[in-house]
Amino acid sequence: MHLTAIVAHPDDAVIFCGGTLAKHADRGDDVTIVYMTRGEYGGFDTTEADIATTREAEADAGAETLGAEAEFLDFEDGRIRYSMENRLQLVNVLRKHRPDVVLTHFRDDMHPDHRTTSRLVSDAYYMCSLPLLETESDPWEPQNVYYFGKPTSSFEPETYIDIGDYQSTKEEAILEHESQVEWLKEHGGVDVEFDGLIEDVRAENRVLGRTRGVKFAEGFVPLHKNATEYLGSM
Amino acid sequence: MHLTAIVAHPDDAVIFCGGTLAKHADRGDDVTIVYMTRGEYGGFDTTEADIATTREAEADAGAETLGAEAEFLDFEDGRIRYSMENRLQLVNVLRKHRPDVVLTHFRDDMHPDHRTTSRLVSDAYYMCSLPLLETESDPWEPQNVYYFGKPTSSFEPETYIDIGDYQSTKEEAILEHESQVEWLKEHGGVDVEFDGLIEDVRAENRVLGRTRGVKFAEGFVPLHKNATEYLGSM
Amino acid sequence: MHLTAIVAHPDDAVIFCGGTLAKHADRGDDVTIVYMTRGEYGGFDTTEADIATTREAEADAGAETLGAEAEFLDFEDGRIRYSMENRLQLVNVLRKHRPDVVLTHFRDDMHPDHRTTSRLVSDAYYMCSLPLLETESDPWEPQNVYYFGKPTSSFEPETYIDIGDYQSTKEEAILEHESQVEWLKEHGGVDVEFDGLIEDVRAENRVLGRTRGVKFAEGFVPLHKNATEYLGSM
Amino acid sequence: MHLTAIVAHPDDAVIFCGGTLAKHADRGDDVTIVYMTRGEYGGFDTTEADIATTREAEADAGAETLGAEAEFLDFEDGRIRYSMENRLQLVNVLRKHRPDVVLTHFRDDMHPDHRTTSRLVSDAYYMCSLPLLETESDPWEPQNVYYFGKPTSSFEPETYIDIGDYQSTKEEAILEHESQVEWLKEHGGVDVEFDGLIEDVRAENRVLGRTRGVKFAEGFVPLHKNATEYLGSM
Amino acid sequence: MHLTAIVAHPDDAVIFCGGTLAKHADRGDDVTIVYMTRGEYGGFDTTEADIATTREAEADAGAETLGAEAEFLDFEDGRIRYSMENRLQLVNVLRKHRPDVVLTHFRDDMHPDHRTTSRLVSDAYYMCSLPLLETESDPWEPQNVYYFGKPTSSFEPETYIDIGDYQSTKEEAILEHESQVEWLKEHGGVDVEFDGLIEDVRAENRVLGRTRGVKFAEGFVPLHKNATEYLGSM
Amino acid sequence: MHLTAIVAHPDDAVIFCGGTLAKHADRGDDVTIVYMTRGEYGGFDTTEADIATTREAEADAGAETLGAEAEFLDFEDGRIRYSMENRLQLVNVLRKHRPDVVLTHFRDDMHPDHRTTSRLVSDAYYMCSLPLLETESDPWEPQNVYYFGKPTSSFEPETYIDIGDYQSTKEEAILEHESQVEWLKEHGGVDVEFDGLIEDVRAENRVLGRTRGVKFAEGFVPLHKNATEYLGSM
Repeated sequence: MHLTAIVAHPDDAVIFCGGTLAKHADRGDDVTIVYMTRGEYGGFDTTEADIATTREAEADAGAETLGAEAEFLDFEDGRIRYSMENRLQLVNVLRKHRPDVVLTHFRDDMHPDHRTTSRLVSDAYYMCSLPLLETESDPWEPQNVYYFGKPTSSFEPETYIDIGDYQSTKEEAILEHESQVEWLKEHGGVDVEFDGLIEDVRAENRVLGRTRGVKFAEGFVPLHKNATEYLGSM
Repeated sequence: MHLTAIVAHPDDAVIFCGGTLAKHADRGDDVTIVYMTRGEYGGFDTTEADIATTREAEADAGAETLGAEAEFLDFEDGRIRYSMENRLQLVNVLRKHRPDVVLTHFRDDMHPDHRTTSRLVSDAYYMCSLPLLETESDPWEPQNVYYFGKPTSSFEPETYIDIGDYQSTKEEAILEHESQVEWLKEHGGVDVEFDGLIEDVRAENRVLGRTRGVKFAEGFVPLHKNATEYLGSM
Repeated sequence: MHLTAIVAHPDDAVIFCGGTLAKHADRGDDVTIVYMTRGEYGGFDTTEADIATTREAEADAGAETLGAEAEFLDFEDGRIRYSMENRLQLVNVLRKHRPDVVLTHFRDDMHPDHRTTSRLVSDAYYMCSLPLLETESDPWEPQNVYYFGKPTSSFEPETYIDIGDYQSTKEEAILEHESQVEWLKEHGGVDVEFDGLIEDVRAENRVLGRTRGVKFAEGFVPLHKNATEYLGSM
Repeated sequence: MHLTAIVAHPDDAVIFCGGTLAKHADRGDDVTIVYMTRGEYGGFDTTEADIATTREAEADAGAETLGAEAEFLDFEDGRIRYSMENRLQLVNVLRKHRPDVVLTHFRDDMHPDHRTTSRLVSDAYYMCSLPLLETESDPWEPQNVYYFGKPTSSFEPETYIDIGDYQSTKEEAILEHESQVEWLKEHGGVDVEFDGLIEDVRAENRVLGRTRGVKFAEGFVPLHKNATEYLGSM
Repeated sequence: MHLTAIVAHPDDAVIFCGGTLAKHADRGDDVTIVYMTRGEYGGFDTTEADIATTREAEADAGAETLGAEAEFLDFEDGRIRYSMENRLQLVNVLRKHRPDVVLTHFRDDMHPDHRTTSRLVSDAYYMCSLPLLETESDPWEPQNVYYFGKPTSSFEPETYIDIGDYQSTKEEAILEHESQVEWLKEHGGVDVEFDGLIEDVRAENRVLGRTRGVKFAEGFVPLHKNATEYLGSM
Repeated sequence: MHLTAIVAHPDDAVIFCGGTLAKHADRGDDVTIVYMTRGEYGGFDTTEADIATTREAEADAGAETLGAEAEFLDFEDGRIRYSMENRLQLVNVLRKHRPDVVLTHFRDDMHPDHRTTSRLVSDAYYMCSLPLLETESDPWEPQNVYYFGKPTSSFEPETYIDIGDYQSTKEEAILEHESQVEWLKEHGGVDVEFDGLIEDVRAENRVLGRTRGVKFAEGFVPLHKNATEYLGSM
């Protein structure tokens, strides 16, 4: 099974779906994280280029901790636009990686980059199987898209993954993003939820888990909702 | 695995969860349908006693078609009351059958018997594991309760069971309830949804299925929502 | 009375509002279907031009079956963009046809063309009555816009039209779209709901009808919600 | 056409559906208001008996202003209980008046009398057509039940009646409830919304009307939602 | 200011609103916890009487830790009934304590005792200011009722109290309920959320706090929602 | 304290948040209204330039009545586009005014200018504190954004400001927009809610107030929702 997570910034994957990616990687699935940007706005007293270098390295380390491959697209942090051209580029990303499952941001998110990434990936998903839409790679159709998001938006998870055995791996992977743990503390005004990042993520995963009968969980909204075989099998 | 469906009237089980019960029975699970009443208000030009006799036989036949056992409690149709005594009786039903999974009506339903049955079963579920609540049978705790309901209430299914291979069995079982197919046609004013019962049920199951990628489905709201193991495994 | 349905692709009108259009046409209303595109991505082993030719003919035949006029705009399938220019073009479409009632896609729809069409039409509706916005045709203001959509989105109908006498006409009109019935079967992965198109549409219309006391219905979300005269008159 | 409004207290009908009742009466419909209680808790420095006398007279005057008949049941204010016996009494009320349309309180209301009245009427509606449930009067089945309520509960109207021509009649009828206009001012703590009763009701009806394109409206939630004939006909 | 929390079982107050009670007590408010029952079903290998004794002592200790008075009513655990008599008893409780603010369970809760307590308190609140309803104590009207609840129900907090400085006091108070920390571990099947009680409560309060810009918070649904003076003052 | 309201058209501020702005100004806060356009489509039998002149004067007078400063950007009425450039312009507006609180349109609004303004301001808010995004003015981060909207959209206020003492000032300020009171009457088809503008606004503010225990209120949805200190303090 192939999973591809497509995220706006280097630390989005570890925070939102790191446990799920680690769990899938651990059972032998191919897992790739595609970073739309290098997060070059995420710092101060420095340059975009320097931050990009730092965060690319952190993203590589974080992905490795999770057991995932990392790939970088060349969108600019804070400046991802919705356009036909960008959508086509995402079609190519999906056709090249040929994932069974795609993970990406939820459509309703205050961060414009998250929102635009969500829309680009969703629409690319819709187009990438069309035989008459010719691009470098052959048509491909992922089975499903899973959206992740923050509890401060209208995001309400419908699918929960038990990450009890992978919470510590997830936290390790988050800690690889050293520059952000610092930056988020200083830049708290933008988003209150990042004060004490590890503690916050752990509390969030525990609360999600607790409502589903497990110790830690991550939550997703699936694009296609499937029937199940038997009561109690889910 | 043991499943116990607890329904207010003889035809409720086949209509709302007949496909799911048939599917579980077919794989070897123990399936019991507990009828709160014999549906003795469900007729005209006759007596309650006669209808009760007819409908009990239909319920037996319908349950047999599904591969389920039938059991009758002695509540009166249209007159099921919520009381501590009735709740205790349901505690005993659960402790006697010791089901892993309980199926019953959704709490928000215009029919007072459905609503009261839902409440009695839910509260009995909550009490039946208490060691200090002593009754004839030993404490027992079902793993989960699944609620079924009509699209005309606020019921919105969260778990869908693929009943593609059991739709015909379900329809056969419904046809065993011959008196009701007739009665519901004449008594259409009470509930518009029963004109052309089989066609309506089939359309409903198809629409539910279609939204979940299968041909026919039944829908439920689970009391406990569980985490799942992997993306795409549900 | 004039009705104008503005749809992204040739088969959208018959599937989503074919019964309603046929019913209005049958009582003497003027009904026009405006096709944004010729659906030229909707095929395989062929060219966009060939598909466009086939589907334009199917759209003409489908519209004729419903008793409606057909008109084609020259947007490209899968590539409808939101822009001021395109919005202005839709203002002109509304001012030229001068419809009392406009029907179009619901805003929340996974298909990007549906979503963009919905937005273009809605915003054009908002602008088309402005006296100071000068275009070829005079200002005009439709009385209302009715949105149709799929149950897989957040679309929840608020107005239901009884199409009991027009279900068969609707199904005939759908069957004129022969290329799509085929294509949708093969291309099931894009959208699970098109396996057995006629059966699915019929089940959907029956379930919608059943909840409103009629045999078959189509559902819409109106832009303006109007008061009614007397209880029971609706 | 027969309409029967069943309300907990003497001033509930004029406040919640007075305009609609006046409008129906004015076109020749038979309109009856059934008062569950005489509102004998609604006062101070007096006795329940005295208040009951005062409010019964006010209820008669208010009903007369609306063009409606008044009838009093003998439930006690603040003490309406849900029981099989009380439900049966309501079955008899419905079978005696044989209304086409029933109006009553919405189920979710903080006032226990409103809530219990809503439940008694709804369940009586469900039982009153059953041929085998024998009572003094013959079985009868109203076509629909319309619920009214306050914006402070979860009540959200789905059907709006244009009462533009009857707002002044409604306000006159409210003013017949002289004791309550006084009492509600003094007893403001129970419910903040009754300071300046006429102004509040008028503002509420105007806001409801404004969202539906008319000057004043009252809003209801119908039990059965019906399909409509043509777009724009509602 | 007087606050009275009315809870079904001895450990409900500390878990659901312990931080808020401690905070109010710390600033000098009078805080009382009224326990409907002594939680005598909450154990095993013992008798109801023994558990009641143990839990009453724990409740006293927990209340003391929070800085609150404790009072016990004599309802039976698992058997709280809704009746006019019980409602009147709660009217008397409110009239005796004369609280400005009442805290109690949210109405939608799977535990029947929680649900019934919520209903009894809410309806008592509605009746306790009526001058003509004579009881031992004089009429009284609390300013507001605040409901607390579990995230597994439909409870969604609307008011958040910052308990950052009282989280440790709250946890201490929970630990006074030693018998329950044990019992809830063994009796996990009834409610999955009590495995690791302190950790769960802390994670829950942190997630609630995080969405409101503070470290820890408790959430409530107020009966009356009040306007505020200035933007940003809340 | 600095408040900046950013609105699409000259009369939007007085109608949607005029009472709140007047109240803040009256206690000495700095209040600025930034008008995206001069509303030059809002007329007939005239030219855009003439209307712009008229409405700019009305906007100045309305702002003065409220005690606010007025500033005009040069977007075109009916033609506000979402683009990176326009977003950057709004970043500069925020960095220049350095408001503690920003007020703007709610994201879900039928008017395309309102919707686009809401999005531009929200995204600018998200970007304006980034140190590495260099513009004319220094980075700045408002504490919160408050959205206002119409009850005909999905807008549901969460924060209510008591404007009882400022309702008359608000109405005076609305009356300064003389051209629009006229225009809205004639142009009723675009939006039914503007027949009798003052009466409608007053009814709306009264209903909002009534549900929150005050005479008149305006309602907002805050971007960041904050915890409060004590129960009853909000």
